[in-house]
Amino acid sequence: MAMLARRTMQRMTAARLMALDWGTSNLRACLLGDGARVLETRTAAGGVMAVPERGFEAVLLALCGDWMDAHRCPVMASGMVGSRQGWQEAPYLECPAGLAQAAAQLTHVALARGSTLHIVPGLICQGADGQDDVMRGEETQLWGAGLSEGDCCVLPGTHAKWAWMGPGGAVQRFMTYMTGELYALLVQHSLLGRLMVAGQASPEAFAQGAQLGLAEFAHATHLIFAARTAGLTGRIAPQGLPEFLSGMLIGMEIGSVKQRQPMQQVTVLGDEALCLRYETALQMAGVAHRRAPRDATTRGQWRVAVQAGLVKEST
Amino acid sequence: MAMLARRTMQRMTAARLMALDWGTSNLRACLLGDGARVLETRTAAGGVMAVPERGFEAVLLALCGDWMDAHRCPVMASGMVGSRQGWQEAPYLECPAGLAQAAAQLTHVALARGSTLHIVPGLICQGADGQDDVMRGEETQLWGAGLSEGDCCVLPGTHAKWAWMGPGGAVQRFMTYMTGELYALLVQHSLLGRLMVAGQASPEAFAQGAQLGLAEFAHATHLIFAARTAGLTGRIAPQGLPEFLSGMLIGMEIGSVKQRQPMQQVTVLGDEALCLRYETALQMAGVAHRRAPRDATTRGQWRVAVQAGLVKEST
Repeated sequence: MAMLARRTMQRMTAARLMALDWGTSNLRACLLGDGARVLETRTAAGGVMAVPERGFEAVLLALCGDWMDAHRCPVMASGMVGSRQGWQEAPYLECPAGLAQAAAQLTHVALARGSTLHIVPGLICQGADGQDDVMRGEETQLWGAGLSEGDCCVLPGTHAKWAWMGPGGAVQRFMTYMTGELYALLVQHSLLGRLMVAGQASPEAFAQGAQLGLAEFAHATHLIFAARTAGLTGRIAPQGLPEFLSGMLIGMEIGSVKQRQPMQQVTVLGDEALCLRYETALQMAGVAHRRAPRDATTRGQWRVAVQAGLVKEST
Repeated sequence: MAMLARRTMQRMTAARLMALDWGTSNLRACLLGDGARVLETRTAAGGVMAVPERGFEAVLLALCGDWMDAHRCPVMASGMVGSRQGWQEAPYLECPAGLAQAAAQLTHVALARGSTLHIVPGLICQGADGQDDVMRGEETQLWGAGLSEGDCCVLPGTHAKWAWMGPGGAVQRFMTYMTGELYALLVQHSLLGRLMVAGQASPEAFAQGAQLGLAEFAHATHLIFAARTAGLTGRIAPQGLPEFLSGMLIGMEIGSVKQRQPMQQVTVLGDEALCLRYETALQMAGVAHRRAPRDATTRGQWRVAVQAGLVKEST
């Protein structure tokens, strides 16, 4: 009985996959056991933008060299590490794209210690406006978020993504909004930013901004100036201005998506504080929401690895 | 006969008004004779943002002290010099506002040499979206642009203004678009800017961007990301990207205005190169355009001065 328990423990804790979420700013490495269970997590500031040319393997070894020696399990990576500025370019998959297409188009990078890194491809799709759109990393999160055909999922962030799921768990199509980057640009570099006092929560100002953004999304560049005027005339206090702008930009995003594609419910996936903002604005827009599981990224990486035959689904 | 000619010459060349166009970045001073004729022009980089606290009079004397000694004519100023960050705050006039209201609400600043500076008030109005909007300087240009009731006028720039004229030459209402500032932010500070090669004319890329902006103005923050993707995928060459973005932002602005207020003809007032861009996009939008006279600013300042009794209209 004791033997069996020990063996079970061993089997349960054995590392099956090293999963890297390697983005623009950060590298997060997880050691996964059976059933995508997270055994250990490490993070480093070694995002794609911070890594010197051809320095990716050194960064990986510094963070996870001991894991690689100890476990000799496959290494899977998703995110900007597969971009032109990353370790090796992983060509985009055309939408609709699911696990089967991703597993068949992994980019393999031989590592010095005899191991192999498998990079998940990003996705490309053409929007209703005829323009291309791209993602890298979010596709893997979507595959791990337990979504069904017809579901809509938003991933807030620097470049917020809205995705719609197709048959067989494929990502049917998606749209990117530059909401997070635009917010940062306006706060840090615009005349509007000069009127702001940062760091204070102001749910009321957020709601005012969101209401306005939802109603007036078709007049974005006028509305952004109105935020400045609201600061100038004192209608919004300097402490409330950052939240007013945040609400306005998120409201504009949701208003624009809704006009393009009516929706009943949206799954929200990402950073806690940002998800709460989107949920508030979605509620104001009359759209129901539910939260995606926190481990969507590692679950998605695990599922790609299973599909590619790199790990076996535990029974 | 010779005497008469000399006297006529003297009367014609005598300075009647010193007109200052004092904005955020530049100060332009004009010496005006009868009928608002420009006798001499001087410019300095001493915009409101560059003037040290309480240093406005020194800047003015450095540029125009000799004029003030020689001519002893009234001094009129319009623009950001009347803002909170300017020489003295000139309270906003509520729209609709015409020459009579402006002349009755000049802000008078006593100058050291016994002269007086008269600052034209800016305008404030409430938009259809319930938000305040403001202008400083453009109101004076509008009054000098020879506009009639019902006319619509656009003043392209960092903060582009669209104004509609009411009865008696009043500015009925207006809307600001942050087009120019947003363009600069995106080129200088965004990920999009990193893909660009600046300095090359590309009318084709401009037209593509304008077409897209006109059609998809309701999805602004998505469209801006699409510009980045177009650079990433090579659909738009790096040399064409600045013009593509410029066209897109101007197209979005015109699309948004048109949705709010259908229009047949627009008067375009401002910098030559920028006016040409707006005229191209207006043409694509099926809106006729005409150009405002080049001396709209000094004509407007003159008209305010006449209305205030500071100068006499020549007969």
